[in-house]
Amino acid sequence: MKISKRVNLMQESPIRKLLSYSDDAKSRGLKVYHLNIGQPDIPTPTFIYDAIKNYSEHVLAYGPSQGLKVARDTVAEYLNSMKYNVDHKDVFITTGGSEAIVFAMMVAADYGDEIIIPEPFYTNYNGFATMAGVKVVPLTTKVEDGFHLPEERELEKVITSKTKAILICSPNNPTGTIFTRKEMEMVVRVAKKHNLYILSDEVYREFVFDGKKHTSILEIEEARDISIMMDSISKRFSACGARIGYLVSKNPEIMKGVLKLGQARLCPPTIEQIGMIEGYKHMKSFMDEMIKEYQDRRDVVYENLKKVKGVFTRKPEGAFYVVVKLPVDNADEFAKWMLTDFSVDGKTVMVAPANGFYATEEMGKNEVRIAYVLNRNDLKDAIEILSKGIEEYNRRNSG
Amino acid sequence: MKISKRVNLMQESPIRKLLSYSDDAKSRGLKVYHLNIGQPDIPTPTFIYDAIKNYSEHVLAYGPSQGLKVARDTVAEYLNSMKYNVDHKDVFITTGGSEAIVFAMMVAADYGDEIIIPEPFYTNYNGFATMAGVKVVPLTTKVEDGFHLPEERELEKVITSKTKAILICSPNNPTGTIFTRKEMEMVVRVAKKHNLYILSDEVYREFVFDGKKHTSILEIEEARDISIMMDSISKRFSACGARIGYLVSKNPEIMKGVLKLGQARLCPPTIEQIGMIEGYKHMKSFMDEMIKEYQDRRDVVYENLKKVKGVFTRKPEGAFYVVVKLPVDNADEFAKWMLTDFSVDGKTVMVAPANGFYATEEMGKNEVRIAYVLNRNDLKDAIEILSKGIEEYNRRNSG
Repeated sequence: MKISKRVNLMQESPIRKLLSYSDDAKSRGLKVYHLNIGQPDIPTPTFIYDAIKNYSEHVLAYGPSQGLKVARDTVAEYLNSMKYNVDHKDVFITTGGSEAIVFAMMVAADYGDEIIIPEPFYTNYNGFATMAGVKVVPLTTKVEDGFHLPEERELEKVITSKTKAILICSPNNPTGTIFTRKEMEMVVRVAKKHNLYILSDEVYREFVFDGKKHTSILEIEEARDISIMMDSISKRFSACGARIGYLVSKNPEIMKGVLKLGQARLCPPTIEQIGMIEGYKHMKSFMDEMIKEYQDRRDVVYENLKKVKGVFTRKPEGAFYVVVKLPVDNADEFAKWMLTDFSVDGKTVMVAPANGFYATEEMGKNEVRIAYVLNRNDLKDAIEILSKGIEEYNRRNSG
Repeated sequence: MKISKRVNLMQESPIRKLLSYSDDAKSRGLKVYHLNIGQPDIPTPTFIYDAIKNYSEHVLAYGPSQGLKVARDTVAEYLNSMKYNVDHKDVFITTGGSEAIVFAMMVAADYGDEIIIPEPFYTNYNGFATMAGVKVVPLTTKVEDGFHLPEERELEKVITSKTKAILICSPNNPTGTIFTRKEMEMVVRVAKKHNLYILSDEVYREFVFDGKKHTSILEIEEARDISIMMDSISKRFSACGARIGYLVSKNPEIMKGVLKLGQARLCPPTIEQIGMIEGYKHMKSFMDEMIKEYQDRRDVVYENLKKVKGVFTRKPEGAFYVVVKLPVDNADEFAKWMLTDFSVDGKTVMVAPANGFYATEEMGKNEVRIAYVLNRNDLKDAIEILSKGIEEYNRRNSG
């Protein structure tokens, strides 16, 4: 007796698949710098915890499937502070950004339909696509172009009769690239021309550096009826374990469909919605400082990576990731080797092999994703260890 | 541009679809007794809230995809107190029982495969089946038989080459029926013979009355390799808004598949897992009293329903629901009418039309599900109002 083919064929998370090796390394007494996962070290703001502690309903009851009214109002208000013209009826609270993406895929496409995603992309999209039964069709972007989108005709080339949507993520995980307004408008133009939905993952909206500007799909009037914006409080409030996200669409048919999916799973967690509300109330008080901290970290990582012989990357524009080309043949093997065979002064580094962030086979074989979610000193130390690791790895392999 | 067919074709929740009418009734100043939804009124135990309030990690971080180790240990210990011989490795913490069911369906079956479910069944299975892309094949049970399972050959009749699993729920939502050990063994026998998985929803395990005994799939040695038990703390701890459930399987292939699905959505809510742990620690201190309360409520509902002319039902054996045959042609219309056109002393009653709990069209047209989740006085009052409503409704319609 066999489990289902779809689950059997699912890839393991490239972010988490080397965990047993890092556990082994730790049990041998090594310190492991985790650059593999986007788990921020920034403390969750106390006002979020305070709201959670103050929750005092006698019964921790089912909430509304679409989220608490006050939570939806809060999200609408937050988005309207950027003049996105959103009503609480356009907002649906989900269990993490993950659920928002799965629901968006299920509403936009049927089994066997296709969704185009620029690659490299957040690897979990593969898992969501498997759950939703849709096929991911990659649109390749390249480190040499700073992972910006290719020409309009390249996007049109991958559209088939089965294509139902284009999924974009900006600021991008894993590349750190911010799509320009022009790129966003190009996507909208193509989507309108070919009757496609746009699923826009904007989880890293605030994580933009050097005065650059993020363009939301909600800013583009022409995309009004065809778009679903997906968001999460995980990174914004350093509250990944809260599992609160949401999706926003101004198309009532989409929202009606999402409600049916949402009713099936009853409701998102109640208490954390209260936490989220407080988060948005006090957002300004900590956001600027947090973004500045990430920009400083980005600088530490980028400046130190540049010094490493044979390494190639562009300066990331936002989010807190960077995809780096290494002078190794197989980044998967290298990442494992760093955990099993290498250390400097009792310390080593865990990175995520980037191959798993591509849908096209063989792509990204010599690339890794680095998440800069540690303090600057640790990051500097980690990149130094990585650099020494590359040197040692290549010496052994050429020996 | 159309949303996906699968979502477009999803039925609305029969439990929630009349909500706009009850909202209207309330805005007209009426009190509405909610017998439509399984939302207990029992206060969530304070030790669960205390654990949540005492959570003090600086970062509310991603937890492990399979749940916190200490949470999995707690579940294993709880199940082992009933001698089910479960290791923490057999336990996977999910976001509510809902996610446990979706994951179980996805692991057991591929798109287009079939899962057999005795009907009437918990209506949200339809939604989960849509999400998982599997077809629900009903096995009809009847109020006259107390909704117990039909003969073995009736079950075998609905098996096709596409059948991958049998899903059972005992104590049953919506019928309150407890499947006997003999019935459970029959299901296991048929499943083994035809190479099917068994998905066993045991959310109401403790909700058994009159000294009756619940049989878990985990008790049946022969089912060891083919079964997935699905559970939730929502009803047990009156904590529906916590969104914590889990699934248990002793088949490592199943657990490996579930882990891949779980990694895609990252993790279940962290803080509520801590709440769950405290819940199980102190379970004995409140469970007996709570079950006695539900049994007393069951008696109030059953005794008062028996007195209503033309109403037929069997005495429910567990859970906190009962499916009742009413002397009306269309229970859907009747349930709506109770909210729009009827009241007694400024009060009316909301019930869930049972048709939506059947997959076979036309079944359950004159049945409703009643959830006895109110105190006994309110329940008595509600059944009296329901009784008067039936009388008035039939007088008008025959007039």
